Amino acid sequence: SKRYTITLLPGDGIGPEVISVAKNVLNLAATIEGIEFKYQEMPVGGNALDLTGVPLPEETLSAAKQSDAVLLGAIGGYKWDKNEKHLKPETGLLKLREGLKVFANLRPAVVLPQLVDASTLKREVAEGVDLMVIRELTGGIYFGQPRGFGTNENGEEIGFNTEVYAAYEIDRIARVAFETARKRQGKLCSVDKANVLEASMFWRKRILEIALDYPDVELSHMYVDNAAMQLVRNPKQFDTIVTNNIFGDILSDEASMITGSIGMLPSASLGESGPGLFEPIHGSAPDIAGQDKANPLATVLSAAMLLKYGLGEENAAKRIEAAVLDTLNRGFRTVDIYSSGTKLVGCKEMGEEVLKSV
Amino acid sequence: SKRYTITLLPGDGIGPEVISVAKNVLNLAATIEGIEFKYQEMPVGGNALDLTGVPLPEETLSAAKQSDAVLLGAIGGYKWDKNEKHLKPETGLLKLREGLKVFANLRPAVVLPQLVDASTLKREVAEGVDLMVIRELTGGIYFGQPRGFGTNENGEEIGFNTEVYAAYEIDRIARVAFETARKRQGKLCSVDKANVLEASMFWRKRILEIALDYPDVELSHMYVDNAAMQLVRNPKQFDTIVTNNIFGDILSDEASMITGSIGMLPSASLGESGPGLFEPIHGSAPDIAGQDKANPLATVLSAAMLLKYGLGEENAAKRIEAAVLDTLNRGFRTVDIYSSGTKLVGCKEMGEEVLKSV
Ligand SMILES: CC(C)[C@H](C(=O)O)[C@@H](O)C(=O)O
Ligand SMILES: CC(C)[C@H](C(=O)O)[C@@H](O)C(=O)O
Repeated sequence: SKRYTITLLPGDGIGPEVISVAKNVLNLAATIEGIEFKYQEMPVGGNALDLTGVPLPEETLSAAKQSDAVLLGAIGGYKWDKNEKHLKPETGLLKLREGLKVFANLRPAVVLPQLVDASTLKREVAEGVDLMVIRELTGGIYFGQPRGFGTNENGEEIGFNTEVYAAYEIDRIARVAFETARKRQGKLCSVDKANVLEASMFWRKRILEIALDYPDVELSHMYVDNAAMQLVRNPKQFDTIVTNNIFGDILSDEASMITGSIGMLPSASLGESGPGLFEPIHGSAPDIAGQDKANPLATVLSAAMLLKYGLGEENAAKRIEAAVLDTLNRGFRTVDIYSSGTKLVGCKEMGEEVLKSV
Repeated sequence: SKRYTITLLPGDGIGPEVISVAKNVLNLAATIEGIEFKYQEMPVGGNALDLTGVPLPEETLSAAKQSDAVLLGAIGGYKWDKNEKHLKPETGLLKLREGLKVFANLRPAVVLPQLVDASTLKREVAEGVDLMVIRELTGGIYFGQPRGFGTNENGEEIGFNTEVYAAYEIDRIARVAFETARKRQGKLCSVDKANVLEASMFWRKRILEIALDYPDVELSHMYVDNAAMQLVRNPKQFDTIVTNNIFGDILSDEASMITGSIGMLPSASLGESGPGLFEPIHGSAPDIAGQDKANPLATVLSAAMLLKYGLGEENAAKRIEAAVLDTLNRGFRTVDIYSSGTKLVGCKEMGEEVLKSV
């Protein structure tokens, strides 16, 4: 039987609760499909800060690098909010992405028929939304140098960052995006601000260059402000979206909220080779941590992405996805997606119901 | 009687049609309130490119600077889309903002009871939305140096921009925001990405500093990705939002689309002193230009903002706002806001109906 090592990073807040459910689901699906997992659980984020004084201990990064895939819960909490930058939980996550070189962040936003009423958008607008945001994750203004604080030529205090993209960074994310679009509806929309920013003009130029290799994919370009509008006006117009780190941060979150069920949404972060990083798109929700109220399905679906994109284990992935749908069809809902007529369950019970459906 | 000089910049696409309507409405309201206007009409954007070879001729900028207020239609069109950066219509607009030093962009997003169904959001979510986005307009990544194209230390081609804010730039937009919030519901939400960007950390630090002078305003901070979500989830939670140039570009457009009636939304761009710049938030809509289909109300309401914020002529401003509401109440709609049971009119006829209500 095939064997893989998985690094589990439960993180903070509701992280441990949702990771525990996802691990059980992974295990059962694996057993059925003849896969064997070895797990190593490591600290990251706020809990790593408390334990070791840094948000990403060396041991965590090297364990992650040596494993076949990494499953993360969530990081952050009020407790560490005022920390200096290098001691923020978020910095641990950014270092993890950088360390694993996972430059391609895949964020599906799907409105399931069972949950269409959870969207704040009208039924006819939300129904059938099925888009994928592909966000560049290890470049741009998040990592660009120079950055920091200083003074300008008039002696005024300033804070500054650099938005910068090199050709290879754009080319590789473009290829992931075109390949992904090709497997979906064949439509790719590249989002930039090429009417103002040189970094975006260069982005668009490279996208057009790579597009020559994908004549079968229908490419369009959209300015980021317009994209923010179009996601609200008519999200169904989108199939695959590719964009830079900061625009992707904003637009993927907007797209996820349009589904109304961010407790359901997984993500995958992939590099050229080496382990991928899989995590729910929701945060650590410190206000409900430890109360068995969290929706574990985003993490369960992240585990499915881990199987599919991280290990190429499509069957096990499909088994988990089907189990989630079946559980929803049987009426089980955590509080974030509850509506009258459905059965309200906690995090653990939701996990048990999914296991029954695997 | 009071006399003012207004620079009219009709611009491209539907710009001339909507400016013509707004001018008539301005004139009538002015006459009734004992105000006299002198107009000077100047080229900007694509039409300036065609006429003079540059998107913002010297004459246009100096006329604008010497007038009491500037009313702009819209700029841009397919024809100039592939132009080099310094020959883009957009560059004319950016130079105009820079030249007039209008650092504070006020963008109200209001869901009128008459138009609540135009929103793609559910009635209960859209109803009663009344927020104001205050966007910093002459700084940040739009204008930051260094910018351009080059090569990095590995000889790779790059494109880059600089996000930079000096203390005085943040302080002055903060004051506008606190003053505005004070006149509204007293709630100000500052949007940044202070968990990642130094420019945002510095932004937040200065906002907190200026906040000491406004203890009566309830200040909160939100990350930009979360703000993009919250605008979809529950836009009513917001009163006044203040943010940087690029985040403001994205969020104000998202907020406007949430109202469902971007053909209705005005904006004001103000400096410390000197003339303000007033323009509808919609674009030049080249696809419907010259067809008498445009909604002139955003420009009419921009004229009202011109009277209120630009000239301090509150009575004339209120007269125009009331006339717009009355026209909607009498059932007149351009095609963008039409719904069954209302009276479909073109741009000109809408203008005539507003005149009857002034
Ligand atoms: C926590 C934060 C640093 C992170 C980001 O901005 O990338 C988060 O918002 C995300 O999108 O994963
Ligand atoms: C046309 C463009 C340069 C402009 C901007 O990005 O500021 C527009 O989107 C706006 O918001 O007024």
